[in-house]
Amino acid sequence: MFEDFREYSVAEFFKKNRHMLGFSGKIKSMTTIIHELVTNALDACEEAQILPDIRVEISQVDVDKYKVVVSDNGPGIPKELLGKVFGQLLAGTKFHKYKQQRGQQGIGAAGVAMYAKLTTGLPLHIISAHEGKLVSADITVDIQKNQPLITNLIEDEADFHGTIVEGVFGDVKVDKSEYSVLEYIKRTAIANPHASFELVINGEQYSFPRTSDKVPPPPKEVKPHPLGVLTYELIELAKRSTSKTLKRFFVETFERFSTAKVQELEKLVNVDLNKSPKELTWQEAEDLVKAIRSMQWMAPRKDVVYPIGEDQIKGSLEAILKPEIVITRTRDPKIYRGGIPYVVEVGIAYGGNFKGSIMRFANRVPLLFDSSACAITKAVKSIDWKRYGIKDFDNEPVLALVSLNSVFVPYVSAGKTAISQEEEIVQEIKNALMEAARKIKIHINKKIRSRELEKKKSALMRYVNYLSHDISYLSGYPPEPLKENLERIIKEKYSL
Amino acid sequence: MFEDFREYSVAEFFKKNRHMLGFSGKIKSMTTIIHELVTNALDACEEAQILPDIRVEISQVDVDKYKVVVSDNGPGIPKELLGKVFGQLLAGTKFHKYKQQRGQQGIGAAGVAMYAKLTTGLPLHIISAHEGKLVSADITVDIQKNQPLITNLIEDEADFHGTIVEGVFGDVKVDKSEYSVLEYIKRTAIANPHASFELVINGEQYSFPRTSDKVPPPPKEVKPHPLGVLTYELIELAKRSTSKTLKRFFVETFERFSTAKVQELEKLVNVDLNKSPKELTWQEAEDLVKAIRSMQWMAPRKDVVYPIGEDQIKGSLEAILKPEIVITRTRDPKIYRGGIPYVVEVGIAYGGNFKGSIMRFANRVPLLFDSSACAITKAVKSIDWKRYGIKDFDNEPVLALVSLNSVFVPYVSAGKTAISQEEEIVQEIKNALMEAARKIKIHINKKIRSRELEKKKSALMRYVNYLSHDISYLSGYPPEPLKENLERIIKEKYSL
Repeated sequence: MFEDFREYSVAEFFKKNRHMLGFSGKIKSMTTIIHELVTNALDACEEAQILPDIRVEISQVDVDKYKVVVSDNGPGIPKELLGKVFGQLLAGTKFHKYKQQRGQQGIGAAGVAMYAKLTTGLPLHIISAHEGKLVSADITVDIQKNQPLITNLIEDEADFHGTIVEGVFGDVKVDKSEYSVLEYIKRTAIANPHASFELVINGEQYSFPRTSDKVPPPPKEVKPHPLGVLTYELIELAKRSTSKTLKRFFVETFERFSTAKVQELEKLVNVDLNKSPKELTWQEAEDLVKAIRSMQWMAPRKDVVYPIGEDQIKGSLEAILKPEIVITRTRDPKIYRGGIPYVVEVGIAYGGNFKGSIMRFANRVPLLFDSSACAITKAVKSIDWKRYGIKDFDNEPVLALVSLNSVFVPYVSAGKTAISQEEEIVQEIKNALMEAARKIKIHINKKIRSRELEKKKSALMRYVNYLSHDISYLSGYPPEPLKENLERIIKEKYSL
Repeated sequence: MFEDFREYSVAEFFKKNRHMLGFSGKIKSMTTIIHELVTNALDACEEAQILPDIRVEISQVDVDKYKVVVSDNGPGIPKELLGKVFGQLLAGTKFHKYKQQRGQQGIGAAGVAMYAKLTTGLPLHIISAHEGKLVSADITVDIQKNQPLITNLIEDEADFHGTIVEGVFGDVKVDKSEYSVLEYIKRTAIANPHASFELVINGEQYSFPRTSDKVPPPPKEVKPHPLGVLTYELIELAKRSTSKTLKRFFVETFERFSTAKVQELEKLVNVDLNKSPKELTWQEAEDLVKAIRSMQWMAPRKDVVYPIGEDQIKGSLEAILKPEIVITRTRDPKIYRGGIPYVVEVGIAYGGNFKGSIMRFANRVPLLFDSSACAITKAVKSIDWKRYGIKDFDNEPVLALVSLNSVFVPYVSAGKTAISQEEEIVQEIKNALMEAARKIKIHINKKIRSRELEKKKSALMRYVNYLSHDISYLSGYPPEPLKENLERIIKEKYSL
């Protein structure tokens, strides 16, 4: 019974459970490939403060088999890291940092390489031009060991910078549906107006020029917030710290931990805060965490979370839907799980040639799949839209766009396709939507009132002729001026 | 920008993303702990063909802090494997096998140890009595290395067999809600009538004696089905094979691959099937996979998937809900992803003191969380219940129980809380539900007709007196026998 006990690599785990990475179904798998490569390109360009020019080329080579080339003008990837980026799952820089990025765990690109290997046996072909040096190589994942396999390495000089990723994939498909690559790029363009996209699918070209020349600021790394730290994490941070005393450790390691706060903490616990962090015991850490949670703390910094922006959301929805009205709302940044900063922004479009739908974004990346699992969907569906004048969300002309931005987005699975339905987050999204919905309600009521007034006005206007003649007969006054006056009075009274 | 590039262990990944393991929210985290330990106990007892006696004891030791003890009479765990079971993620026997088990990836127990470490710093205390030997030890996970840490190891003789797992956990909570441990055990008992459960929560005792003395057969391991193999997997299996020729390899490695099928395959491809499997090239493997997919194959074996059983489902629903009617239905086993066997069984209860709800099971384990992400929920919600006489599922007395059983359940995330909404699976669940719902419709129609007849009968009965007297007056016949006859005629005509 216990004979075949052995350890498995994380690559083997995700090979068997590749649906958790988004590789489930042909359309979804193709969109997942594009998503992983495009988000890496956007993150890299933003770090290097480059306006991204991204090109995606997809061409069918056989039944359900496509060649994909994604190129960008980013900083490129250093030679020594190519293997880890494309050939190893869970290797990256993004893991321990609290910084708003699209990728957050070092799985994406290696997952793409693995999918190519599983479906065609072929490695990815990478060209990277970084700081004047060009490297070209074939890279794939040794799945059993979760290690990179690199072949055909060529080095040269480069007078440009950027990355080109080329692969051949099976069990994939591209079409023009709402789940496919064209829709994905369209929505990515909405959330990233500073980026330009060229998309070529089997020769058909789609251009999305940039509509802003402003590179978003490079995301700031944020230190952990005191309220969010678990006892175990406090000990780990203390062990790794180079601070001389616990007092210095707190100030240097955490956000909002001033020396005044240290003094306040000192009074609440029976721990010598002058000793080295490395001497911290579990019990002491537990007491410190308890004390920290009983203290008042400043709200998180506003400048570590980066929303799309209300103007951009409004402009995009107006351009796409041509609605009667768009209401946007950005909430103040909040924290969840005690200390992780995030910010929610929403846009509700109403009135026009579209029906009830939800558009989801996380860290300025569109979420197209697994909608039923998503915190955003749960929030939208849990609102009593009748109270805002919308009796039947699904069948009325309303679109709710929700964008969540955080230094760490809690996704449902490693494929980052849906946001985990954490209560605090669902509630915050609801609040944002309800605030916007109140203004939609005012608009709808105005519309209804305006329509009712119009009806009354029309009804009355039908009788103006008769009325003016009758009054004229009774009074002796001429009918025409009477009629004009009556019409004027009616119009005045029955308008908004 | 690339300075902090390093590799991360799978334990670190799941520490940061512990919500993917089900550790999100206090109630859910506690239920997840119990779930992982109880399912391990059930799997072990079934392998060893022992009728399981499982005891779960939960006692509060502080605010949101509980001691948990789970003990079973299973075969115990050998000393040399204790570390890997409780101290390492992705170590286990279950990974490469296609066998219907509750655990399927070697994460569960180590995830529990990790959660204890994160919230209290304490290791799990394990006592294992296996084949006459007793081992007692404290075990936890070294998260950075994903390696076990074992202390206080004591060995002795044992005259019993079983496993006791003891831990102290923070950030957990237990109550009597539908998401908590009591409900979890209740539903586990429904799906496992051969097991007995003792549950003690802060001194309050709940017993669930077994209602069957039949141990389910130990799950049979199934070889991969030809239709489900990817090119990459074919090559890996060929590389690992000890068969002398490709012909023997196919027959020995796959289900339903008879020598006749090998001959059929030989005619379809330009590959020498007499050569060693180790010489198989990618292109050849790709051609073989294509050819295999064009052939006809026998359906999967029925005896590798183990449903709860219609009698058990019916009996349980009748006992719990006391409904007017329960309709059950077990479908034939199917395959998804080309070759993975699974079977769906359902039970629909109608009429009584309950409202629209869904009860989910996967491999005879209840699913309580992440319902919106689940294939079962999607299937239930996508049915047009009006066609079956249920105008408003949520508010009418109907309960749909769905149980999916497979050698590999595609879960949404590593926490195994919901089934991935794979199209084939959602459709199959829908088919099962619609078959059962048709019979519910017959019952409902019968009820409606019966009510209408009753109404007509009552209405007519009101006039029997008058009618009989009037007829008596007109005809001269005595009223009493007339009245009796009339009543008899009405009753006969207006009954089902």
